[in-house]
Amino acid sequence: MSPKITTELLKQLRQVMKNPRYVQEPVQAYIVPSGDAHQSEYIAPCDCRRAFISGFDGSAGTAIVTEQHAAMWTDGRYFLQAAHQMDSNWTLMKMGLKDTPTQEDWLVSVLPEGSKVGVDPFIIPADQWKRMSKALRSAGHDLVPVKENLIDTIWTDCPQRPCKPLITLDLSYTGVSWRDKIVALRSKMAERKVMWFVVTALDEVAWLFNLRGSDVEYNPVFFAYAVIGMNTIRLFIDGDRMMDPAVREHLQLDSTLEPEFKIQVMPYGSILSELQAVGAGLSPKEKVWLSDKASYALTEAIPKAYRYLTPYTPICIAKAVKNAAETEGMRRAHIKDAVALCELFNWLEKEVPKGTVTEIVAADKAEEFRSQQKDFVELSFATISSTGPNGAIIHYKPVPETNRTLSVNEIYLLDSGAQYKDGTTDVTRTMHFGTPSAYEKECFTYVLKGHIAVSAAIFPNGTKGHLLDSFARSALWDCGLDYLHGTGHGVGSFLNVHEGPCGISYKTFADEPLEAGMIVSDEPGYYEDGSFGIRIENVVLVIPAETKYNFKNRGSLTFEPLTLVPIQTKMIDVNLLTEKECTWVNEYHQKCREVVGAELERQGRHEALRWLLRETEPLARVQ
Amino acid sequence: MSPKITTELLKQLRQVMKNPRYVQEPVQAYIVPSGDAHQSEYIAPCDCRRAFISGFDGSAGTAIVTEQHAAMWTDGRYFLQAAHQMDSNWTLMKMGLKDTPTQEDWLVSVLPEGSKVGVDPFIIPADQWKRMSKALRSAGHDLVPVKENLIDTIWTDCPQRPCKPLITLDLSYTGVSWRDKIVALRSKMAERKVMWFVVTALDEVAWLFNLRGSDVEYNPVFFAYAVIGMNTIRLFIDGDRMMDPAVREHLQLDSTLEPEFKIQVMPYGSILSELQAVGAGLSPKEKVWLSDKASYALTEAIPKAYRYLTPYTPICIAKAVKNAAETEGMRRAHIKDAVALCELFNWLEKEVPKGTVTEIVAADKAEEFRSQQKDFVELSFATISSTGPNGAIIHYKPVPETNRTLSVNEIYLLDSGAQYKDGTTDVTRTMHFGTPSAYEKECFTYVLKGHIAVSAAIFPNGTKGHLLDSFARSALWDCGLDYLHGTGHGVGSFLNVHEGPCGISYKTFADEPLEAGMIVSDEPGYYEDGSFGIRIENVVLVIPAETKYNFKNRGSLTFEPLTLVPIQTKMIDVNLLTEKECTWVNEYHQKCREVVGAELERQGRHEALRWLLRETEPLARVQ
Repeated sequence: MSPKITTELLKQLRQVMKNPRYVQEPVQAYIVPSGDAHQSEYIAPCDCRRAFISGFDGSAGTAIVTEQHAAMWTDGRYFLQAAHQMDSNWTLMKMGLKDTPTQEDWLVSVLPEGSKVGVDPFIIPADQWKRMSKALRSAGHDLVPVKENLIDTIWTDCPQRPCKPLITLDLSYTGVSWRDKIVALRSKMAERKVMWFVVTALDEVAWLFNLRGSDVEYNPVFFAYAVIGMNTIRLFIDGDRMMDPAVREHLQLDSTLEPEFKIQVMPYGSILSELQAVGAGLSPKEKVWLSDKASYALTEAIPKAYRYLTPYTPICIAKAVKNAAETEGMRRAHIKDAVALCELFNWLEKEVPKGTVTEIVAADKAEEFRSQQKDFVELSFATISSTGPNGAIIHYKPVPETNRTLSVNEIYLLDSGAQYKDGTTDVTRTMHFGTPSAYEKECFTYVLKGHIAVSAAIFPNGTKGHLLDSFARSALWDCGLDYLHGTGHGVGSFLNVHEGPCGISYKTFADEPLEAGMIVSDEPGYYEDGSFGIRIENVVLVIPAETKYNFKNRGSLTFEPLTLVPIQTKMIDVNLLTEKECTWVNEYHQKCREVVGAELERQGRHEALRWLLRETEPLARVQ
Repeated sequence: MSPKITTELLKQLRQVMKNPRYVQEPVQAYIVPSGDAHQSEYIAPCDCRRAFISGFDGSAGTAIVTEQHAAMWTDGRYFLQAAHQMDSNWTLMKMGLKDTPTQEDWLVSVLPEGSKVGVDPFIIPADQWKRMSKALRSAGHDLVPVKENLIDTIWTDCPQRPCKPLITLDLSYTGVSWRDKIVALRSKMAERKVMWFVVTALDEVAWLFNLRGSDVEYNPVFFAYAVIGMNTIRLFIDGDRMMDPAVREHLQLDSTLEPEFKIQVMPYGSILSELQAVGAGLSPKEKVWLSDKASYALTEAIPKAYRYLTPYTPICIAKAVKNAAETEGMRRAHIKDAVALCELFNWLEKEVPKGTVTEIVAADKAEEFRSQQKDFVELSFATISSTGPNGAIIHYKPVPETNRTLSVNEIYLLDSGAQYKDGTTDVTRTMHFGTPSAYEKECFTYVLKGHIAVSAAIFPNGTKGHLLDSFARSALWDCGLDYLHGTGHGVGSFLNVHEGPCGISYKTFADEPLEAGMIVSDEPGYYEDGSFGIRIENVVLVIPAETKYNFKNRGSLTFEPLTLVPIQTKMIDVNLLTEKECTWVNEYHQKCREVVGAELERQGRHEALRWLLRETEPLARVQ
């Protein structure tokens, strides 16, 4: 993978930063955030402005270009990838390391006095604007909104914004109708005494209306906003997709409905002016609820005194707690996903020794097996298929320039998942097709101990996920090892593979307390730069636990793995496991055998079944 | 303990809340925070306004009085105590429980439209003012500063502000001279480009000048502020204590010094006007550094554009990392403290069966033994001497009304500590002088497992303490038990027994990363309301650890217990311990024997030595 040459692009950007056609006054720095106007993590090609200007195309990163410098902030998952993809014009700012300056501190240190720092107000979340604006102002600089996106002005072959057909989901998938979701939302609005709610996140629009799309690869969402009043519903969406009879029927667009459930469909681009009109027409005490991560542009449309901002919207919180229909769907999806992976690993075991399987071939094969499963829609993220040193690039995606051949001498790490109409999967397994070294087994076993420590953890109802993060690290820490990423993220139900408001991370973010029905990933790892990567990831469901004393009736919680794919026992140094950990592995494998075995049998996949039975033989500890 | 009758007081307060002599406009609510003008946790009697109005005298709590209601927010340590001390005029708001409203939310829910909420601007920290003011404003109310403290207007017999003599500390205690501390501070100021630094916390003033006082019980501090410029030092302090030749010599007040080290002594009460003068005289770019916890009154003295606010001051951070002289002093203090406790427990073992030892007698005896030790100054907090059900009141202090007699049938919990001129101690031991029940032993052993999990934890350099909190809870959680307080706090060096910026807590506060030389407590517990309390607390020093792989040279840390007092083995269910935990106990006890044993020997305390040797016999696990 050779870096993108950005010298000319940066020159052009620095020119438009001073061009009065685009900026009222020259800006001495221009910020290019990661997201789109919906603050999505995964974005459409037309929104990949940061990747366009820098070459770095990981899912998280912020670029800042000044007259002299170009700097990129990203987190531990992407240090290696960003270093590979960017040319020498760029300085990599490793977030999470002690000596890395914040964007604000760095700007203050490099900018001449009284500088203007520009940013697209539709792309920057309001909370970030506020923090950054304050820090800059206190150092004598100004953060200014630049209406026209400066990257777009130099991006001559920028692709069009997608506008693909919609999928409607019936009650058997969603458990709750969109009307009932609107009713529940309005009751939350009434509780907080707000009159309007602005839905800006794409997955929240999709969840609220029980619709899915494919405007963004891997995330079944569509470009839209919604504004929900106590008696009105406005959906801002483009294209002829609203002409689809199934969609019209689903949204009851042509029925005579009570007026408060009548959906007004409006052009996507009219959101700002409509919201400004709402803002202008508010009477005292009429509040408008927005996420504090909504764009600065939309937030500013509502006069400050009328805004009600929260880190998480009631939709985000309701969406995170899966109902029975969603949970059952997630279970089905994970069983199908396990069938596909048993097929894949059985196939790899035979093919790898021949020396013909590359990372890309393996990823494609995984997709092929998944696509054979019922209700398969697409992958849930770009498959991380990485062998040997590529495994240490945490969010690696194989491309022809880096594509490595799997061998019996290297560790293979596969982090992959799919969107099925009944659920979203995300699973990582680390395999060796030859004989792992003692050191590789040692590291794998520490990671496994961390995985089990989280998965088997028992904790009181209402515990926040970040309190569980260190459990995943303790065994690694004891030997002086660690990994530079969080341990888990929320997972959507046929929605985004990363979703809030819960997660398991050492970063103290405002995560919401875990409650039964939430679904998160459990994925500790260990990465040896230049050598190998290890990660073990299951998607787990928060369930009630039985404890001796039950926290004085506060209630106990634990996790149930939804992912049911064998963990390679060959990689385990059994002597490093406690008896309890050993039992956990054996019981987990027993469940894989029973549940996935039955499905393999039903699908007539006998060879994969034999592979599963062999891979799930119980571990025996040497006493 | 009977509650304080507050009906009349509340009536008076509600009158002055409307009295134009004190308030420009009537206030519909009045907030009485816990702290003093320095945001101290422990306060002088004249500052105990919240205790005066409510009866609740725990170390943390905020009272809010409206025309209809009186409510008290406090945390899990004080739920029982507050409930006992307050009469039915008061509603207890249990912080940390899911359904407890924040002060802001509660105010919004009870206040009539457009209310004024009053508070003393000297008592409320600027960050709290900001948060509360914003929340109230967004609901149509106003937070207003009430210059005259309304409690003081009705507190007819309010004691005088203390003004006691100072103690000077030489280099053998402090390791660094006050001049060198000023130099280091100015270099931090230069780094951040600030011209002035305002020292508002009492322990920061004391630390900076290597002085101690006794204006506040248990905390060796004195009422003072300091304003440090790049070339000036102003110390705001009252009384004739500056006439003491030792103090004048120590501060070199009468020497011909370089002007930048010349200390100008000014009246304590002149801080506001002097700071306003500083604020008025600032030229552009001249910033003034304040803690964001400094009072709203002092913060407002500096125009907003000139303020540089941080959650922790550079003094707070420097003070937390103990140098060699301080660490050695802390070690010495803890050995002396252990000698006193060995004497006490040996004495209790003989006396308790006679039925004559009450909680107060035991506490007094502990103080007596401590006071026999060299350089003893005073206790470091009110001794928590509690038996049976009183042990479940987390920050219990025995008073005649509640004073219970120790017996061979109940658990006894002693949480106590002292100020020695060379260090501050804080230790909790839970003992049974008869035969503990299986359930008591079970709970004790879980608490011990949590204590060991933190104490023996290994973690990478730069880890924040809150990431270790769950280690202390894991064994309890597995059985459905928990405790409603944090696991540890920073400890000063002959200074406040609770100090920032580090700690170990489930609460996500902005704790600074742990580094070698920091000192914290490790004190998990378990409390059975109405029955017993268990807590095991050591003060521990952060030290470098040796690990196999050393976090890729990032460095490894762990803890070394400074507290060296036996943990009662009678209370341990050895079969619940792992081999590693058993070894930890035995090695800890071996160290108590060697280090404290030698000191007991040296002091000729042979009976206590025999007690120590017996109590530190190695545990043996049944295989």
